Amino acid sequence: MQLGLIGLGKMGLNMAERIRAAGHEVIGYDRNPAVTDVADLGELVSRLVAPRTIWVMLPAGEPTRATIASLAQLLDPGDLVIDGGNSPYRDAAPHADVLAARGIHFCDCGVSGGVWGRTNGYGLMVGGDAADVRRALPIFDALRPEGPREEGFVHAGGTGAGHYAKMVHNAVEYGLMHAYGEGWELLKASEVIDDPAGCFKAWMRGTVVRSWLLDLLVKALDDDPELSGVDQYTPDSGEGRWALQEAVGHAVPTPVLAAALFARFASRQENSPAMQLVSALRGQFGGHEVRHTE
Amino acid sequence: MQLGLIGLGKMGLNMAERIRAAGHEVIGYDRNPAVTDVADLGELVSRLVAPRTIWVMLPAGEPTRATIASLAQLLDPGDLVIDGGNSPYRDAAPHADVLAARGIHFCDCGVSGGVWGRTNGYGLMVGGDAADVRRALPIFDALRPEGPREEGFVHAGGTGAGHYAKMVHNAVEYGLMHAYGEGWELLKASEVIDDPAGCFKAWMRGTVVRSWLLDLLVKALDDDPELSGVDQYTPDSGEGRWALQEAVGHAVPTPVLAAALFARFASRQENSPAMQLVSALRGQFGGHEVRHTE
Amino acid sequence: MQLGLIGLGKMGLNMAERIRAAGHEVIGYDRNPAVTDVADLGELVSRLVAPRTIWVMLPAGEPTRATIASLAQLLDPGDLVIDGGNSPYRDAAPHADVLAARGIHFCDCGVSGGVWGRTNGYGLMVGGDAADVRRALPIFDALRPEGPREEGFVHAGGTGAGHYAKMVHNAVEYGLMHAYGEGWELLKASEVIDDPAGCFKAWMRGTVVRSWLLDLLVKALDDDPELSGVDQYTPDSGEGRWALQEAVGHAVPTPVLAAALFARFASRQENSPAMQLVSALRGQFGGHEVRHTE
Amino acid sequence: MQLGLIGLGKMGLNMAERIRAAGHEVIGYDRNPAVTDVADLGELVSRLVAPRTIWVMLPAGEPTRATIASLAQLLDPGDLVIDGGNSPYRDAAPHADVLAARGIHFCDCGVSGGVWGRTNGYGLMVGGDAADVRRALPIFDALRPEGPREEGFVHAGGTGAGHYAKMVHNAVEYGLMHAYGEGWELLKASEVIDDPAGCFKAWMRGTVVRSWLLDLLVKALDDDPELSGVDQYTPDSGEGRWALQEAVGHAVPTPVLAAALFARFASRQENSPAMQLVSALRGQFGGHEVRHTE
Repeated sequence: MQLGLIGLGKMGLNMAERIRAAGHEVIGYDRNPAVTDVADLGELVSRLVAPRTIWVMLPAGEPTRATIASLAQLLDPGDLVIDGGNSPYRDAAPHADVLAARGIHFCDCGVSGGVWGRTNGYGLMVGGDAADVRRALPIFDALRPEGPREEGFVHAGGTGAGHYAKMVHNAVEYGLMHAYGEGWELLKASEVIDDPAGCFKAWMRGTVVRSWLLDLLVKALDDDPELSGVDQYTPDSGEGRWALQEAVGHAVPTPVLAAALFARFASRQENSPAMQLVSALRGQFGGHEVRHTE
Repeated sequence: MQLGLIGLGKMGLNMAERIRAAGHEVIGYDRNPAVTDVADLGELVSRLVAPRTIWVMLPAGEPTRATIASLAQLLDPGDLVIDGGNSPYRDAAPHADVLAARGIHFCDCGVSGGVWGRTNGYGLMVGGDAADVRRALPIFDALRPEGPREEGFVHAGGTGAGHYAKMVHNAVEYGLMHAYGEGWELLKASEVIDDPAGCFKAWMRGTVVRSWLLDLLVKALDDDPELSGVDQYTPDSGEGRWALQEAVGHAVPTPVLAAALFARFASRQENSPAMQLVSALRGQFGGHEVRHTE
Repeated sequence: MQLGLIGLGKMGLNMAERIRAAGHEVIGYDRNPAVTDVADLGELVSRLVAPRTIWVMLPAGEPTRATIASLAQLLDPGDLVIDGGNSPYRDAAPHADVLAARGIHFCDCGVSGGVWGRTNGYGLMVGGDAADVRRALPIFDALRPEGPREEGFVHAGGTGAGHYAKMVHNAVEYGLMHAYGEGWELLKASEVIDDPAGCFKAWMRGTVVRSWLLDLLVKALDDDPELSGVDQYTPDSGEGRWALQEAVGHAVPTPVLAAALFARFASRQENSPAMQLVSALRGQFGGHEVRHTE
Repeated sequence: MQLGLIGLGKMGLNMAERIRAAGHEVIGYDRNPAVTDVADLGELVSRLVAPRTIWVMLPAGEPTRATIASLAQLLDPGDLVIDGGNSPYRDAAPHADVLAARGIHFCDCGVSGGVWGRTNGYGLMVGGDAADVRRALPIFDALRPEGPREEGFVHAGGTGAGHYAKMVHNAVEYGLMHAYGEGWELLKASEVIDDPAGCFKAWMRGTVVRSWLLDLLVKALDDDPELSGVDQYTPDSGEGRWALQEAVGHAVPTPVLAAALFARFASRQENSPAMQLVSALRGQFGGHEVRHTE
């Protein structure tokens, strides 16, 4: 089938290639003239045959919002827009409403797989009406990994369900990553362990903790078994924050997620204000020495 | 080669089968007459040709300790004892000392893989002297999964390193399991998700969170997509506790491990004393209602 | 001076008494005819001499919002409205805007002290313009405890600062309460401690952990040294949730707050979905027994 | 009465003064000749009239252990030794045993109050036999704050109960301190709060969070309202670690204590190994930038 794809960044370009490799026609638009197939959204729309399917793969927030507003003006009733970016799931309903006012359909799709998705396929979580999901199924099938469809794709629920499921996926990912991180630090801290990186490698087969993330960790440790030059500084993309805020709103205890997220926050602090206070307080009651920065 | 294997429980029997399937001779001893090959430890020792290799696969603590003490009396200098049970790593040095006093060698080996190890092979983490590890390598090779040796086996360091690495492995496992648990609860709590079990299944291929544990989760959810009859009550085997205590001793922050372990503790409480106090306190200062048990 | 006070619940009535005891005139309005001084907001406004000061002491959200909207219609330019309820600080700016459109001034005031405030005075945290705060100072002085003003009152910043400071105050309170709760549980768990309640009582004087909350705890324990009938079930009022969500938004690690809040969430769960998943998963890989509810 | 006091450091000297001010005779021994009253333990014992009471106020571990061993040789049956240092409670039974073998009695006493105890009195938690506790009551009464005895003193249970209660006290203290620390950081992070230090000061009277620790915090903030020069680096004395290890041993969930302790660990790390691993892993799967140290 024919697909319009807006946003040809790292993810978008890879996805376009994978969809084309499956035999579909992809017309891409990006504001970067080096990669775009068309001059503007208007040309993109005019090159697609109605009823059109357009996949938006842009940064969450304003870029996605503005594009969907433009598409609401340009598209025809019966066309379908899929937001495949990392949008917060609460944006899905407003996006759907803006489009529905013009008779245009909407799905939200969480996409997992990172830079490996081009080769391995992408895990897909979709929200929207069943008929719309069915219509875009050839594209979903092109993107998802080989194997049974339900092992790499789910129609998770109505509008927003795709991005909600992706948000939860990323929350789990935060926790998994930090669990390995703590294990690494425990191995490094021990005087009896000679080969922490070798332990991780030995977990690849047979053990309970084997996983794709572990395989990647072993690749990183093969490059540098000590991670000696790596700085602790770790950004967070937003999904983990939204997940924790949703957990709070739903009264769901998520201490592992919170711990993993807080550790990222702390990794970016030079001097923790909380610990400054604790140190100053110890100085007051115990006469303990308070260290000062230079 | 020839191996004496003490302890023919769920794990031991499976391991014996796998080792035999690799062409080795295994003589097993268990106090259960239905499964044992010999009448007692004395017969076991007499049936093995020196220098002997004996694998102890018993519950940690007294059973393992008593057996190693007996072996110290029965074996000859140059024999080798491997503790493959879930012993705390701090038991390894005393075990080694008891045996070394009689010229007997010792390795500690952490074994991961559970009931699936018979088929998939076991992940192995070994501590001890290089010569002893080399000597038992045919047995380790029989037990470990197919593929490159270093992806299912590691000589992690000197005495105790095997059980230390296994302790860390289990600490990671606690964290991984709880990360999935939180994700599950977040999916169940949402009004937009129709199919939480389907989301987990869709994570099996292509996603960042795919893992062997996830595959097992999908099996559990295939049986009961709601887990409706499952009680929250979850034991802990000891490894998680030792890991947290080691973390504290080494000043390693392990909030994910702690959260996962504390959640297990809490899962077994009928009425949390801490929360009783908090509730009683709220009643004092705010005039808030305090609920009472019947 | 003269004050209109809207909301004569548990808090409002006590506050009215304290303000009157300081020599001010308070005209109260409540929809409950048994306690109100006036028939409706219109009569309240007509009974006050301009420029008026009106204190709103209602539940956060719709009740406060609707009342402020009504006051915007009824009051005159130059009048002052103070929101003293437990509103989220993000409501302050919209409230201020609605009133400013009519030339009416606005302050937000966080009030701490609970049922004890009538006697001890209330801790006050105020946001708004300096001139408005100054104008209401006689009321603040009547409400706050005796002693230096700055030890029971702060003009914390512009619009919203009062409720933000109160939100943080409550976040701290959550953490303090849970710290005592954990201490209680540790004392109860020990076989060497004969008198956990006596330990808390002995902390009242001289120790580092003495506090007003501890004094209240001792009162609760004097009534029932075992807290035997108290149920763990503990509600949360909203302030703790907002604080955690703000922390996430500001990238502030708040593990203590999160732990205290999550423990309240958990105290209300019959069967934790996360732990159901963990238990089911253990059954899959280890052949461990999975408990089922009846 | 007459008391031998071993250890005239910061705490010991203050305590000696307070006991003397209550009319008792204190003979102090310290290896520092500038402060000691006697040349050695032998002279200390000879200067006291049997049955003697000797208070040991030394660092936990070897110094206390060695001194108690010496006292076991020097004292007579019927004498009483009190360990008032910060010993782990598990040391109490061995200490008691060493002394009991010679007919010498033993109490363990946790002492709280820091540098302020000289003036305010010390909170005391005592373990041991009732008759021994009664015998030393004049000393306990001299040390504890004024007011009802049970508000600054408890006979918490048998041998070890005093130090266990003190360990729990310090665990609570860790949690309280960190709760304030998080509140501080939340106030500092906000764009609407002009005066974080003023907020803390305003909590001193009337609020739910008022406490002695808060009073000390206000003193620290009076000196430097920004804590601008204070380094986050914060040691931990051991009590918090023991408390967490006991919690784990007793299956008591203590997430607040764990969070406070882990934050101290983290405050002393230059580059968190766990976060190095997380950062390296993100680089592998997402192509995210990995920062490197110089």
